[in-house]
Amino acid sequence: NCVLDGDVTPLFVIPLWLDLTAVAIGAVQGAMFAARFRENRLDLLGVAIIGLVIGLGGGLARDILINQVPAALSTNWYLLTATGAAFVGMLLLRVFTRMNAIIITLDALTIGMFAAIGCAKAVAAGLPEVPAVFVGVISAVGGSVVRDMMLNLPIALMHVGSLYAVAAGAGTIFMLAAMHLEVPIVWAAVGCVLITTMVRLLSVRFG
Amino acid sequence: NCVLDGDVTPLFVIPLWLDLTAVAIGAVQGAMFAARFRENRLDLLGVAIIGLVIGLGGGLARDILINQVPAALSTNWYLLTATGAAFVGMLLLRVFTRMNAIIITLDALTIGMFAAIGCAKAVAAGLPEVPAVFVGVISAVGGSVVRDMMLNLPIALMHVGSLYAVAAGAGTIFMLAAMHLEVPIVWAAVGCVLITTMVRLLSVRFG
Amino acid sequence: NCVLDGDVTPLFVIPLWLDLTAVAIGAVQGAMFAARFRENRLDLLGVAIIGLVIGLGGGLARDILINQVPAALSTNWYLLTATGAAFVGMLLLRVFTRMNAIIITLDALTIGMFAAIGCAKAVAAGLPEVPAVFVGVISAVGGSVVRDMMLNLPIALMHVGSLYAVAAGAGTIFMLAAMHLEVPIVWAAVGCVLITTMVRLLSVRFG
Repeated sequence: NCVLDGDVTPLFVIPLWLDLTAVAIGAVQGAMFAARFRENRLDLLGVAIIGLVIGLGGGLARDILINQVPAALSTNWYLLTATGAAFVGMLLLRVFTRMNAIIITLDALTIGMFAAIGCAKAVAAGLPEVPAVFVGVISAVGGSVVRDMMLNLPIALMHVGSLYAVAAGAGTIFMLAAMHLEVPIVWAAVGCVLITTMVRLLSVRFG
Repeated sequence: NCVLDGDVTPLFVIPLWLDLTAVAIGAVQGAMFAARFRENRLDLLGVAIIGLVIGLGGGLARDILINQVPAALSTNWYLLTATGAAFVGMLLLRVFTRMNAIIITLDALTIGMFAAIGCAKAVAAGLPEVPAVFVGVISAVGGSVVRDMMLNLPIALMHVGSLYAVAAGAGTIFMLAAMHLEVPIVWAAVGCVLITTMVRLLSVRFG
Repeated sequence: NCVLDGDVTPLFVIPLWLDLTAVAIGAVQGAMFAARFRENRLDLLGVAIIGLVIGLGGGLARDILINQVPAALSTNWYLLTATGAAFVGMLLLRVFTRMNAIIITLDALTIGMFAAIGCAKAVAAGLPEVPAVFVGVISAVGGSVVRDMMLNLPIALMHVGSLYAVAAGAGTIFMLAAMHLEVPIVWAAVGCVLITTMVRLLSVRFG
């Protein structure tokens, strides 16, 4: 209950390990992104908070939109994973230099995984196609909007050149189309991740 | 279920065409508002996103507050309407010049319609009077707060002179009073729209 | 329903007078904080809105996260109390000078009370320990994050030195530990308020 009854209600559940993997990659990447602003009066706590925002923000926005208790609050694992991963991200940036390429790749991968998981949860909750794409895109980019607002940066999402929204939108539209063609959801989701990640990486290279 | 049981629970439903009209006017106006900031490093996607924020933001905030699945996610129409209207808003600004008066009028009309719809939904969900006014005001101005924060503008709501909150508050208080006096909800809502729109327009002219 | 079924579901209710007291202290303090920015183009309405944000923001975030209709919308008292308290805060600042110490103390007390109430509600809703701490911290600091974003200030939460999050985290962890040791919830909550308030005050004095 508390959920829309749509025409198509395929019942499937995101495996916990997969969701936690996306959270961890997001938190690592968020912390690495924020750690580069250290001179910008951002201390360790601020870096960890941005890690949490990127790791958990999109999923919280997704679950609030579809009116469910957020997955991140239903077990201890999400917050522990995101916090641990944020610290790993901080350490990585100290150990290595020239991490820019890795941050960009992880960022693109995060967007892809969150788009696929968000879209899948929206479909499972019975949302129609267009709102399912919307929830997928919000899951993918919601954390980065909050991050940019908290860091007082221009919001990357707002610029076509960043292709954030375009990438997540293309991936989720592919995923829904594939599911309508009876492609198993796992492969539809893999396609979504690949398309989203590649579109975003191409925008960085050529934009 | 998932909704408060208040003393007064008049059962009525906002017609879809009316809700979509408010969304469309909001999205047109939001896109026109944002398009004037083009020099401000805001591209087409940014303009469309601000259109979506103004068209859908207040309603999303309203439905999240009253703990329901957002209307905008329950059918494809809301997102399609808002996206289409945002593009219309962009085109209008290119075709015509001196649109300032139209933008201000549409803005005032948006606030009035969202205030009336938000207040009606809050009452239908069983909320008491003061929270119903609050939800009406948030529906009316929530989108503009997010818009101003995303565009890094001073938040118009925060200044008495703008009369945003005052206009929406006066309109919703009138609507609730009229409903208590057994005035049919349609006329109460029309009064709310008229009062809110006029107060806001007067503030622009004389403030 | 609409709530997680956890292992431990102690059923208890926050008394209304206690919740309203926390709201009132928060709104007084929020208005006093904002009123000092008057020169900063913030007028009376803006001051009142910041009072509302501090008095009600954390609780709204808490209830949205645990997927319940916000307490602040279930009776008229919350909004009336917060609005009245915000005006009291404005008056106090005009009557007295050198209120800085009082604002800081009320701020610390607000954080402590919101952390305890937020944690208690999260446990009552069946959330596990780590999410309960998270909801307690968000209840405590959520209002101040929105305040800082609306006033375009650097976000105090983001800096270790402010100890906002650390104070609220320490208090809620103590509270959960005490509850696991069968300490009555009232005393656990009192301990949470004391610890949070003292950690925050020490950070101001020595940080």
